[in-house]
This record gives sequence, structure tokens and C-alpha cells, in this order.
Amino acid sequence: MLAVFGHLNPDTDAITAALVYARLLARQGLDAQAFRLGELNFETAFVLREAGVDAPALLPELPAGAAVALVDHNESAQSAPNLANLNVTRVVDHHKLGDLSTAQPPYLRFEPVGCTGTILLKLHREAGLSVEPLDARLMLSAILSDTLHFRSPTTTQDDRDAAAFLAPVAGIEDVEAYALAMFAAKSDLGDTPAEALLRMDYKVFPFGEPAQQWGIGVIETTNPAYVFGRQAELLAAMDQVKAQDSLSGVLLSVVDILNETNRTLVLSATEGKVLSEAFGVTVDGPVADLGGRISRKKQIVPTLEGYFAAQG
Amino acid sequence: MLAVFGHLNPDTDAITAALVYARLLARQGLDAQAFRLGELNFETAFVLREAGVDAPALLPELPAGAAVALVDHNESAQSAPNLANLNVTRVVDHHKLGDLSTAQPPYLRFEPVGCTGTILLKLHREAGLSVEPLDARLMLSAILSDTLHFRSPTTTQDDRDAAAFLAPVAGIEDVEAYALAMFAAKSDLGDTPAEALLRMDYKVFPFGEPAQQWGIGVIETTNPAYVFGRQAELLAAMDQVKAQDSLSGVLLSVVDILNETNRTLVLSATEGKVLSEAFGVTVDGPVADLGGRISRKKQIVPTLEGYFAAQG
Repeated sequence: MLAVFGHLNPDTDAITAALVYARLLARQGLDAQAFRLGELNFETAFVLREAGVDAPALLPELPAGAAVALVDHNESAQSAPNLANLNVTRVVDHHKLGDLSTAQPPYLRFEPVGCTGTILLKLHREAGLSVEPLDARLMLSAILSDTLHFRSPTTTQDDRDAAAFLAPVAGIEDVEAYALAMFAAKSDLGDTPAEALLRMDYKVFPFGEPAQQWGIGVIETTNPAYVFGRQAELLAAMDQVKAQDSLSGVLLSVVDILNETNRTLVLSATEGKVLSEAFGVTVDGPVADLGGRISRKKQIVPTLEGYFAAQG
Repeated sequence: MLAVFGHLNPDTDAITAALVYARLLARQGLDAQAFRLGELNFETAFVLREAGVDAPALLPELPAGAAVALVDHNESAQSAPNLANLNVTRVVDHHKLGDLSTAQPPYLRFEPVGCTGTILLKLHREAGLSVEPLDARLMLSAILSDTLHFRSPTTTQDDRDAAAFLAPVAGIEDVEAYALAMFAAKSDLGDTPAEALLRMDYKVFPFGEPAQQWGIGVIETTNPAYVFGRQAELLAAMDQVKAQDSLSGVLLSVVDILNETNRTLVLSATEGKVLSEAFGVTVDGPVADLGGRISRKKQIVPTLEGYFAAQG
């Protein structure tokens, strides 16, 4: 059995890419099965509910040497805890290549596009397989999610073309309305505990040499007022996670999807200094205005990498 | 400009893949140019002469941050000396993934097939581009070279299918005769100095933890008698390279292409012990009979990796 899974703190792309890639590999004769590495967020739960499909099971502890396929990630810090003992035979991803190595020649398919779903559509075409409506819906949802309905600077023409092809196959006539419903579901955070909000779309990055570990969470929402209403709780959760995980810094960016702005919570003077120096913004109080920098991958992490590299 | 190049000590796949991929990217609108990281071997010189195409230029020292595309390799030890300072934007390869990482999301295309040329044919198809006769000849030559005309255990059905498609496009009617001519050219080693013979198809691998560096050369030939006639010279060259490059061991496998056998020169008791224990063969004197193990990638290196890992 080939276990197919996306990253920790799964988002819509991580979950749907595992489902779609496992289904594609099964159609090609492999015994592939999708798994997840954490709880669904509200957007993903909405997408799967609308699609009428069950969430993949939590990944069980796999025996050493088990064959696995990674989607939407490749770095060990974002993957199964025992990844080093597993046999990575396939990766489909749209992130930079991190610390992955393999024991045997793998299938790797990386493209600098906005979403793994966009690459998965190409894999269907290259395999000469038709796209089933369920897969079309899942890939389209991932593209809308990862690109914030084409608002993110990570969006490429390939993503737009893929979405345009997929919408009619998925039977989704009003893509705008569907995207808004996804974002509303994502924004309906209810009584989610503060630490869960922080960790919902959260990744740890090593910066500089010797590496400092920084945790960076993002909350993409159509309702930023709700998030800032819980500012004190969130700062307390950030402080706790920073100590607990021995991090050098913790950031939480609140991205207003519809207005395409990023206001980032500033935990301490450490984070404030880095934000003001790296991004050239004035940090005064617990919220830094990072303007239109809504993509962690394209607009936050590379700037911080460059900043810390220059400190070395 | 995007510089496209294969590995150090280039073989036919490394050179032709650089030429073909640069031509393909140029047809897709990129300013791509092929380079090489060393002298052509006699087989590759024959292939380019028959194709009427010039060898790519030696890679000049590129400025830090220059965009590069790697073909037929991905490990830094087999690449440009300043690879860590270059911006790897694309890799097309059929080896295991080593120590590569990238600053941005790259295009990666790895498949566990016998030859980079087989993957390059797929890239033509996926781009909706016809295959020009010159490119077909270069890709076919690489496939015949890397798979030893389908004798190597690295050969896959994809390689056979690719060659069957490419031969008529290349205008090569008698593939068997063409492969034999390539192998004869490769075997016509003339007065090549012993160290150059050793280094012709030579790679350094880290084995075990802490890593020992082992140099492994392969001479694929239709005329092993010629090579063993120079045994004393070759052993002297191996000894010199071992000291000069601070290696833990040096092996030189002489692969009889037509009879599909591997007899490996044994430099000292160190190499003899490792060969006898790792492969379970009797080593008595300066030549170890490794039987039908003709693929360094598939039959030599993995066994040595397992052997050294078990010592740890």
C-alpha cells in the first residue's frame, strides 16, 4: 500500500491533493490510499461536505521503509514525524525543495504554480485519463483556496486555466459564489480555542545560520474583526507555543481575503524588531501592518530568509 | 540566460540531455543555453559527430544567483563547484534525490527510468511540440548509452517505448548496428592516460555515518581485454586519486557490455574486504568478479550503502 498525504495542519490543498492523487494512482493500478496529518479546517470540512466525500483517515504510524507519496509539501518539519524512516517514492508539490532526499530514484513533480491541484490536473491529462466530476471539484476547491480566488501573488496563468477547465466539469456554475462560501466557512471560527486558531495554518521555518526556528501562522478570513476581537487570547497562545516549542519567534498574520491586506500580531520586541527591519514597516504596538503581503510563501518567508541570511 | 548542464565527467546522457532540454526550453520561449562540465568521452564525441552537432561549451564560472537547470544529476558533488550559490530553477533527472535544496519553488521532473532522454521525450509531448530529428537522435543515443541497449537492469518499459518511437524520427533504421557503433567508439580508448580512464565515468559517494567518501569509476567496454592489459597503470592511478582526493576507497568496475559482466579492480585490502563482505564474493588478487552487476546506480551503490549503514 502506498500512503498519500499532505502536510501537518492540513489545508484544503493538502487534503484534496491526497484524495485526488490517491484516486489517480489507483486508476493507474497502484494500491494507493489517502491520509491526513491533522484535523480539517472549517473550509476543508465545507469542501468535503459539499462534495459528499469523507475525510481521509489520520495517518497511522507506518512501519520503517513503508512507501509513501507526499503532496503539497516536501520538508520533514511539515511531514510525518518518522519521515526519515519512510520510503518517499513520489512527491507532487509547488513549494521550494527543502531537506528531502530519497533512497531510490523517485517520481518528483514540482512546478512553481499556485496550487498542487493545478499540477494534478496536468497529471490526469498526461496519463490520458478523463477528469471525474468529484476530482474536478476537489482540484478546483484547492485552487480557489490556495490562490484566494486568484488574489494571491502566487497565482499563475496555469492556475487560472486549470480552474476555468475544472469548473464546468465539477458542475460549479458560479465560481465566485462558491469561493465566497468557502471563505465564509473558513471565517466561521466560532469557539475554536486560540492555540488551535494559531496552529490552523501554521508552519515552522529555519532562518539564518545557525538556524533560528520561527513559527508563522496565517489566518485567512473574510472577518478580521472577529480575529482581532480575540487578540489578547491569541497573543497569550503565541507566547505559550513559543516557549513550548523552543522557538526564536512566532508570528500570526491575519489576512483579510476580500481586501487583500495583512495585519500581523506582534508578540514581543524580538518579533517587532525583525518585522520592522525586514519589511521596513513601523511597528508600534501589538499589530504590524504588512500591507498587501498576503502570501506567506511568496511575500513573507523569502523576505525573512533574506533578512536573517544578511545577519549571518 | 538559463544555463543547462549535466554532471561532471559527462556521459552521453549528460551532454545530450543538456542540448535537448536547452533546445526544448528555447522553443518554449526561454533564453536557455547548454553547457558541459568536462571533456566528452569517445562515445559522446561519436554521437555528436554523427549528429553533426557541436559539443556544448564548458560552463564558465557563473555569477552568484545565476539561474541554472540541472539534467541527469542533482547532487552537489556531481555538479558545478559553486552550485550552492546558484539558483536551481529546473531539474530533469532519473537519479535518487540527494542534497539539493532550492530558494524558490522549482520545476522538478524526476522519474525512475533508465535515462533522462526518456523523460525529455515526455516533456516534448506534454508541451505539444513535435520531436525534431536531431533531438530524436540525441535522446535515442542517450537511451541506448544509459541502458547499454536495454541490457542494464535500470531499463524500463518507458525507455524501450521511447527508443521505439525515436528511432524512425531520428532516421536510424538499424538501432542494433548504431548501438554497437556507439559502444565500439566508447571502447576505442587508444592512449587515454590511466587517470583519465578512471575518471571518465566516475562519481564520489558518501557511505555510512560519519560518511566515508568512496570514488567509483566504471568503464563500459566491448573490449575488456584492452582495459585489463593496462591493469597495473590503472591501479597506480587509483592509488594516486585515493590519496589526492582523501578518499576512503576507490573502485573501478570494468563492465563487459556485450557479455553483461562486471570485473572490478581491487586497489587494496580495504576495498577487497568491503567488496567481499558487501557482495559476498571471493576476492583473491586485484580483480573481483561481481558477476552480472553491471549497473552502478542499481546494483553497486545501493548494496554499498546498505553495507556501510549496517556497520554504523
